[in-house]
Amino acid sequence: MRPPEMRRLDSRQPDFDSAVEALTAWEESLDADVNATVTGVIADIRARGDAALVEYTERFDRRTLAGAAELEVPAGRLQQALDSIGVAQREALETAALRVRSYHEHQRQDSWDYRDSQGNRLGQQITPLERAGIYVPGGKASYPSSVLMNAIPAKVAGVGEIIMVVPAPDGELNDLVLAAAAIAGVDRVFTIGGAQAVAALAYGTERVPPVDKIVGPGNIYVATAKRQVFGRVGIDMIAGPSEILVICDGSTDPDWVAMDLFSQAEHDENAQSILLCPDAAYLDRVQESIDRLLPTMERAEIIRASLTGRGAMILTRDLAEAVAINNRLAPEHLELSVADPDALLPTVRNAGAIFMGAYTTESLGDYCAGPNHVLPTSRTARFSSPLGVYDFQKRSSVIHCSPEGVQELGKVASVLARGEQLTAHARSAEMRLDESGSSS
Amino acid sequence: MRPPEMRRLDSRQPDFDSAVEALTAWEESLDADVNATVTGVIADIRARGDAALVEYTERFDRRTLAGAAELEVPAGRLQQALDSIGVAQREALETAALRVRSYHEHQRQDSWDYRDSQGNRLGQQITPLERAGIYVPGGKASYPSSVLMNAIPAKVAGVGEIIMVVPAPDGELNDLVLAAAAIAGVDRVFTIGGAQAVAALAYGTERVPPVDKIVGPGNIYVATAKRQVFGRVGIDMIAGPSEILVICDGSTDPDWVAMDLFSQAEHDENAQSILLCPDAAYLDRVQESIDRLLPTMERAEIIRASLTGRGAMILTRDLAEAVAINNRLAPEHLELSVADPDALLPTVRNAGAIFMGAYTTESLGDYCAGPNHVLPTSRTARFSSPLGVYDFQKRSSVIHCSPEGVQELGKVASVLARGEQLTAHARSAEMRLDESGSSS
Repeated sequence: MRPPEMRRLDSRQPDFDSAVEALTAWEESLDADVNATVTGVIADIRARGDAALVEYTERFDRRTLAGAAELEVPAGRLQQALDSIGVAQREALETAALRVRSYHEHQRQDSWDYRDSQGNRLGQQITPLERAGIYVPGGKASYPSSVLMNAIPAKVAGVGEIIMVVPAPDGELNDLVLAAAAIAGVDRVFTIGGAQAVAALAYGTERVPPVDKIVGPGNIYVATAKRQVFGRVGIDMIAGPSEILVICDGSTDPDWVAMDLFSQAEHDENAQSILLCPDAAYLDRVQESIDRLLPTMERAEIIRASLTGRGAMILTRDLAEAVAINNRLAPEHLELSVADPDALLPTVRNAGAIFMGAYTTESLGDYCAGPNHVLPTSRTARFSSPLGVYDFQKRSSVIHCSPEGVQELGKVASVLARGEQLTAHARSAEMRLDESGSSS
Repeated sequence: MRPPEMRRLDSRQPDFDSAVEALTAWEESLDADVNATVTGVIADIRARGDAALVEYTERFDRRTLAGAAELEVPAGRLQQALDSIGVAQREALETAALRVRSYHEHQRQDSWDYRDSQGNRLGQQITPLERAGIYVPGGKASYPSSVLMNAIPAKVAGVGEIIMVVPAPDGELNDLVLAAAAIAGVDRVFTIGGAQAVAALAYGTERVPPVDKIVGPGNIYVATAKRQVFGRVGIDMIAGPSEILVICDGSTDPDWVAMDLFSQAEHDENAQSILLCPDAAYLDRVQESIDRLLPTMERAEIIRASLTGRGAMILTRDLAEAVAINNRLAPEHLELSVADPDALLPTVRNAGAIFMGAYTTESLGDYCAGPNHVLPTSRTARFSSPLGVYDFQKRSSVIHCSPEGVQELGKVASVLARGEQLTAHARSAEMRLDESGSSS
């Protein structure tokens, strides 16, 4: 097998900016046919509920169902799956769940309030969502780790009920996924998928209760359906291909770096692995490691396609410039594989998750370090955050004016409301003022 | 003028659930023509930049422009506007800005980290967005208070640059809006609007810098454009009609309550005002106040249309049931116009903002109490929050494993990665373990 040549860029080359732009360009495909199909499926689920849900599930997942009741996984089945998996797997899932829970508990927000100098009370009341829906893909992309990462933040937030949907193509379910659901504390599981599952969660059917927010990854139909139901329910971000950006100072074993690039590339051919280093000779050494290690990999073909199609090694002037390029690309994962990562950390502005030092390989974060592995992709780390407890809590402003405290506020509101020609606003404030008659 | 009869419902009536459902049903109109127009405008701005932006602005805002430079408001113009408005207006805007800033400073989040028992460091780094865009409608809906409410949270978050866009139909600009921009610390202002302004902010043109997030209200073209650029940039919620739900125990002057209902209804005919009370005689008294006060209102026709079309008075069994109905409707604004609002507050789950007690009329929150007036509408308070500092900050997970600390984590990651058939993930973790050769 011919080793893959990763694209080489140099930050000093005259067309560097446009080369980086071309390298990282990714447009979410908005397929008009998919869009129309999804619109139809959602309308059908809204109109016919369970009957439509059963029909779509029979057709797309090649199943024969006696009725909608069969779409729900019996509660005992989760515990049964947990008992059936190997001890090593079970212990690993339980350790991961414990660590993920512990990290996310740091994200919990509390209500607060204070009094202003006039005695008015101002605050923010935090409440959890009542019901959340978690989409888990079926088949090969059905990852137990994703069940933990999506369900545990909801649980920590105090969500009342967690509904998981996972398609069962040909009736098959992954025991590890069900075991993870048991460990994470998922309340109910339905074996449905695709746009029909998203529609059922958003609008509810006789059998499936409507939720307040839908999270979790899925194919183009699922992503399109989430986009369409956004507003009726909350959604998490629409995920693009997975990305890693590794910044090296040349001190990390090149084999380690090669394997870290592989671990992103093995996800799929569109995944993106980028290495930045101010030392050209080190880039050569990593390329040698790639050449030697690639033939030993089980997913060699996918890795090769990803590295040659979307990967790159970039020679930078120094580490500071490497961080500046990172901030522009805002990757999902950033490895600071350098001797002193703390020197760089404060200058990192945009990244979903930051892995510090040579020992902190990204896959630790995927499974068990504690932080979430659902991270912003496609440069959305410029404005969005990892999935977290805050995605399952919401805030209500609280204002309590005393009869005395309203006096100054009422006058200010009156002036501003009249400036906007909103007279009822002005008068509702003026009525509360001492000098007004109470029915002015 | 015939007084409006507000719809009366009784929580004991057999069809109450479906009556409430019908009352509050609101589907965002997804107009296929608007959608196609907006898609075209966005593509055009991306392809032709400033040239297209000038053309659209000339056409839609009836202006004649020498070039794109004319679209930017000179910096001195903001200060000039501030100097030109009346003293009362200026002082009111400044007091409001001070109070809004003070409240939002409580929302600022700080980075944190901790060490686990194995010496690994886990944390969350908070950074502000680099550049935010604020859309301000032109003409009659051009509200200075909205400038404060959108810009100040961004400023408190530490956003590097705040870009405001506001259309200037026939070249006209509202001095109060420009003055508010000066007070709030807006960095640059462009007189553009519609889908073309949203596209320019999302993708940038030669003159308009691309932003990371776009917030602020707009018409159907603006809302549709925001939905389309979502993912390229962050957006706030798509706002529906404004709503108030007032819960009374019968102790508040009925004139006050009538005026509070008016202040929501005067926004537009689709605004929704709902009153809940366990005392039928009190509902009659509020209706009498409405009948008497309505003819005195400047926007009487709009108020009448809103109250008769979408308003309602609901007789409930008790206050607890009133809160339960509130939680189901998840209104933008909730007034607890009762003697002991603190007794009810902990049971309120879903509301954008909660106004406690008879003196706390909603318009105080619209202008100057401190909390934001950009609030979730159309039942989205079930899963979303007022606009806040958190909308302009984002989080990056931080993981730093020591050579010792990686030992347990690496083994767990290895087991789970192999369970998911992701061998490169497993090997990248295994390489860091003591028992492995560094190049295994």
